[in-house]
Amino acid sequence: MTVRKYFRQGRASPFEYTWPAGRGIPGWVLQHKVPYGTSDAAHDPVMQHDLPINVDVRSIICTPILSSFGEVLGYFDIRNKQDAEGFTVADQDMLMALAPAASIAIQNALAYQQRLSAETELQESYERLRALAANLEVVREEERTQIARELHDQLGQALTAMKFDLAWLTNRIVDKDEALGQRAKAVTTQMDTMIKTVRRIATELRPGMLDDLGLAASIEWLAHDFEKRTGIICLTTVTVPDVPLPRAPSLTLFRILQEALTNVARHANAQLIEVRLDATPETVTLQVHDDGRGIQAGEAAGLHSLGLLGMRERAQRLGGTFDIRGVPGDGTIVTVIIPVKSN
Amino acid sequence: MTVRKYFRQGRASPFEYTWPAGRGIPGWVLQHKVPYGTSDAAHDPVMQHDLPINVDVRSIICTPILSSFGEVLGYFDIRNKQDAEGFTVADQDMLMALAPAASIAIQNALAYQQRLSAETELQESYERLRALAANLEVVREEERTQIARELHDQLGQALTAMKFDLAWLTNRIVDKDEALGQRAKAVTTQMDTMIKTVRRIATELRPGMLDDLGLAASIEWLAHDFEKRTGIICLTTVTVPDVPLPRAPSLTLFRILQEALTNVARHANAQLIEVRLDATPETVTLQVHDDGRGIQAGEAAGLHSLGLLGMRERAQRLGGTFDIRGVPGDGTIVTVIIPVKSN
Repeated sequence: MTVRKYFRQGRASPFEYTWPAGRGIPGWVLQHKVPYGTSDAAHDPVMQHDLPINVDVRSIICTPILSSFGEVLGYFDIRNKQDAEGFTVADQDMLMALAPAASIAIQNALAYQQRLSAETELQESYERLRALAANLEVVREEERTQIARELHDQLGQALTAMKFDLAWLTNRIVDKDEALGQRAKAVTTQMDTMIKTVRRIATELRPGMLDDLGLAASIEWLAHDFEKRTGIICLTTVTVPDVPLPRAPSLTLFRILQEALTNVARHANAQLIEVRLDATPETVTLQVHDDGRGIQAGEAAGLHSLGLLGMRERAQRLGGTFDIRGVPGDGTIVTVIIPVKSN
Repeated sequence: MTVRKYFRQGRASPFEYTWPAGRGIPGWVLQHKVPYGTSDAAHDPVMQHDLPINVDVRSIICTPILSSFGEVLGYFDIRNKQDAEGFTVADQDMLMALAPAASIAIQNALAYQQRLSAETELQESYERLRALAANLEVVREEERTQIARELHDQLGQALTAMKFDLAWLTNRIVDKDEALGQRAKAVTTQMDTMIKTVRRIATELRPGMLDDLGLAASIEWLAHDFEKRTGIICLTTVTVPDVPLPRAPSLTLFRILQEALTNVARHANAQLIEVRLDATPETVTLQVHDDGRGIQAGEAAGLHSLGLLGMRERAQRLGGTFDIRGVPGDGTIVTVIIPVKSN
């Protein structure tokens, strides 16, 4: 049993001491789990007379504070009863009556401490997991970029070069054999399709246009492409056409828009989507408003939608906010605000 | 102030009542924050005589339990002092002396409750985040599979078809013009390189061999490929050559091995790696043992390595375990055990 503080008239003083079972009066109480008192402390054999705290003690009473499981959690130790020889049975009863409340207080405090450290541990795991999730997306974007680059550099460029070789060959073949030349032309056409396919796969993997054309144009392209594929009309309003953004927030907004549009196509039953991109010197705001059935508050809480959670995580990673709310009869509005570091 | 339980001789009975400030004796104490007592309860104007709990009360004393901020957290309410007219000042002092310990107990319990719900909330966020991380990897694998399929179906097959067309053309051109035929042959050779490139990108994206050849052969391929690229000798021992595994555990073990090998190449400074794959009817065990510098306990705790955390998460997702330990002079051992559902 270790004591770290000693309370004297309601004020705590530091007092570091560990009582082994059987050592001193608290040690005796720890061992026997019943009160111990004396009116002649100076001659008491249990008392540790070498402890500075025990100097000038005449009378003393010490009662255990027991836990619900009967273990000693602490003790009351009262000294030098004023205007009396020593402590009475009534004093002892009073202290014992105090013990249960003190016991509950101590047990609660211990439980609180355990909770606190459990929570701290959980919080650390949470932060690590969050970093992992962020990293998974970074790695995925890197992988996409790498594949897109391989496709472009190793396939796209080689295919283009081959196409020119073929075209050159075809011209010469046509001169010699019209029919054979037509066959060669057909292969060249196939080659064109090939090049387009490579370009499409690469673009889907990594919107290179973000670097080339900027966010506004990329968003317009995405909306147009979405409209073409789903038949849902997708209007874009860009109030600041040339938002100069670094790659990270651009990509985040682009991916969130992709996910938001996918969600609309899957769940909203919408006919029209309005996409707005607004910017101030401090923030960029993306808003996606569809005219579908309107997300329910429960769904929006995102307990079950990993897509929503992913969008929120992406926004928060850049210090931004993500909000989704549904209005029955007025569809769903997704709002993402990303802070922009001013130079 | 709402009371939910009433303690009578240490036993709790349900008693639901909310005292507004000023209503009844507890309400009076709640308002005035000082004790209230009477020895003539029957004629006391503050007493609520209509409450069933107040029938047959002769004497009563009620003292507040105050928080550290002076708000009333509860009260002591003692009735019908035996063998006496009513309660004395000493009784009141005794109850007031009990109050601080009870106050701490209540405050601790409230703090504990708050911690508990904070922890529960955090735990839920943690589980959601974990599901998100899992989902990110599932989505990534799906994306890889889809791109690999597109590459294979739309590019690989078309390129192969074109190659045959070209070969056919080349044969005919050679008959008519030897020089032109050689140029056409060169294009065909380029086409071959193209086909190999497409196949390689597709294989890197999705180890299709997992389906075709099984885990054991895929691990051997991976080890061989790693050895070729890094120059680190990579020996494989597969005790059960044809482990029949579903796609999920196969892919998990394959990806963990990829990550583990990458880690060795990056950090271990190793010359030799031994990869073992063992299986029992209940489990499949993958072990990767390198002869490098040996991971430190602190690094192995994985606080900072998202790669390690990712591997652990992948293994745990399938109910498996992930362990990494370094022995100075004996390198690092990564052990992954995945349970296998027996049919």
